[in-house]
Amino acid sequence: MTDHSDSAPLTLITLGVSDLTRAAAFYATVGFARVGADEDIAFFRTRGSALALYAWADLAADAGVAATGSGFRGVALASNQESEQAVDDAVARWLAAGATLVKPPQQAFWGGYSSYVADLDNHLWELAYNPGPLFAPGGGIVMT
Amino acid sequence: MTDHSDSAPLTLITLGVSDLTRAAAFYATVGFARVGADEDIAFFRTRGSALALYAWADLAADAGVAATGSGFRGVALASNQESEQAVDDAVARWLAAGATLVKPPQQAFWGGYSSYVADLDNHLWELAYNPGPLFAPGGGIVMT
Repeated sequence: MTDHSDSAPLTLITLGVSDLTRAAAFYATVGFARVGADEDIAFFRTRGSALALYAWADLAADAGVAATGSGFRGVALASNQESEQAVDDAVARWLAAGATLVKPPQQAFWGGYSSYVADLDNHLWELAYNPGPLFAPGGGIVMT
Repeated sequence: MTDHSDSAPLTLITLGVSDLTRAAAFYATVGFARVGADEDIAFFRTRGSALALYAWADLAADAGVAATGSGFRGVALASNQESEQAVDDAVARWLAAGATLVKPPQQAFWGGYSSYVADLDNHLWELAYNPGPLFAPGGGIVMT
């Protein structure tokens, strides 16, 4: 892996969720390895930043902001796959775990193959295959 | 770094932004190293997942959802620092670059030191020092 020490850390992405137990089971089902034994927050290893799930209201309270919100959040997380077939397989796995299909897998204008799904709390995830040089097949990030 | 190949990739976090040039300058100022020469999307290396900025409306369109939204988004990104002083310094750097202070740096209930800031498009970032074993000082993620 490239040495990324010349850039700032993006340590953790925390998603606010309505039912932590259900959401944690969902993310385990779609392939994230849970770490730790916390009851009120769920941490997952990723190939990339760590992912955490935390109660929606508690996350808002931790930041000191109101918990209400609606509509588009201006955020998409991406989980890159090794091939177009792997994207189709990942979408099937996410839907079977309870995700909602937002955009069926299709050829993307940037040369890859992409789909969007929404998790149990409507967080948007792009499941994609990118044959370009920036994103290594397999999910590692190659940015030099 | 720990081999994370037993967990799923979290390849990219894309933030929808209202002014890509301004937002890209902001993230460069606060310490992220830009890669590539794209004009309509900005990619950054991180110590963690890659970060991308993309026009708010274009990101919504790419997912095929309406671009309108308001209030809390249920998402927080974290950039861990090496010490409490480094958190104070990072907050000062972010505010000087145009971020908004959401929660001043303070002792956190989980034993660390934490602050929340909002970027130019109101995306929440936690700037924190965590002395615990899960998050290595320096920003690397140690999850075994």
